[in-house]
Amino acid sequence: MTPPDRSEDATEDARVGRTRADVSRAAFQILTTEGADALTHAHVAEVAGYSKTTLYTHWPARVELLILALDGLGDMPHREPTGDLRADLIGELQMFRQAVTEFRLDQILSVMAQWASVDEMAQIRDRINTDAQRPIRGMLSTAFAGPELEAAVSMLAGSVACPTLMFGSLPDDDVLAAAVDVLLRGVPSKRGRSTRPDSKTAET
Amino acid sequence: MTPPDRSEDATEDARVGRTRADVSRAAFQILTTEGADALTHAHVAEVAGYSKTTLYTHWPARVELLILALDGLGDMPHREPTGDLRADLIGELQMFRQAVTEFRLDQILSVMAQWASVDEMAQIRDRINTDAQRPIRGMLSTAFAGPELEAAVSMLAGSVACPTLMFGSLPDDDVLAAAVDVLLRGVPSKRGRSTRPDSKTAET
Repeated sequence: MTPPDRSEDATEDARVGRTRADVSRAAFQILTTEGADALTHAHVAEVAGYSKTTLYTHWPARVELLILALDGLGDMPHREPTGDLRADLIGELQMFRQAVTEFRLDQILSVMAQWASVDEMAQIRDRINTDAQRPIRGMLSTAFAGPELEAAVSMLAGSVACPTLMFGSLPDDDVLAAAVDVLLRGVPSKRGRSTRPDSKTAET
Repeated sequence: MTPPDRSEDATEDARVGRTRADVSRAAFQILTTEGADALTHAHVAEVAGYSKTTLYTHWPARVELLILALDGLGDMPHREPTGDLRADLIGELQMFRQAVTEFRLDQILSVMAQWASVDEMAQIRDRINTDAQRPIRGMLSTAFAGPELEAAVSMLAGSVACPTLMFGSLPDDDVLAAAVDVLLRGVPSKRGRSTRPDSKTAET
């Protein structure tokens, strides 16, 4: 629907697009290296090489800077599955742990939770976390179903996220392997993985 | 060691203590009802009924307001254990979920993670989270040891914390019960809870 002779608008669009990309890159860098609190208009303007006025004109609210920063996150890295469920689950947890270190995923998770009352942020958070959990959910869906599948996904995510967010410490390899082993021993027998007839005795 | 005639200082100390208690209460209320970003000097001053100058004099940095707010958190509520491990674990997870709603624990967890580079905040976070996990850790230590105990504590905490922090949604009762059931089926056999001889087959 754009008239072919509006080349000035096209140039203007390209310029805004470039500014947006520059600012997004700077905001992502600040978020992942200095943390969410350093993500101010003044500091992003300085790092991106634009004036504060330019930033305030296009993105007046601070949450818009956070959203721009999250644009730079891209897709989470995942491992190619080998078919060995235990090894694949441990591998995914190790990738999650690595992303915490590389992208300060702890900062990103907590800032997304904190700003989730802003609708656009809640949507971005849901998309990022759904993408991040997809491989683990897919693998676990071969062994668990219903509420147990929901629980199992959160439990494995928690084996990395809880030490990180609650104590600022990354879990060792043996803790990640232990989480997967506990979970796989807990696979329900009706799906052919547990042969234990008395699994209810642990509940008494 | 205080000389008995320094009553002016004593009065001054009492006054500062009262101010601190008032400001702490106001900061806690703001954090748990409006979120971390509303916790500014201006807003805390307004709610507590003091001047901004008073606040800036005693607590110049924003992180100090956050620390004051966390003073108001007190101890997490816990359930009296009944001796039924399954019921006690589910009960603790329900208390954790309730605290998320009542105290906006999602906001508190994420703000503590975000400011953990400040040493005093890291210490407060470790203390609050250690206290919060203590009952679950105690119960699980009857069934798990070593890395599996670390993993199991994080996995149960994750069953509440992950949906909350990653998707802003609280887990249903059936998901909490499922988490406990999966975990209890995964109790290692050498400790007399699992009679399954082939627990390693799930790993292949």
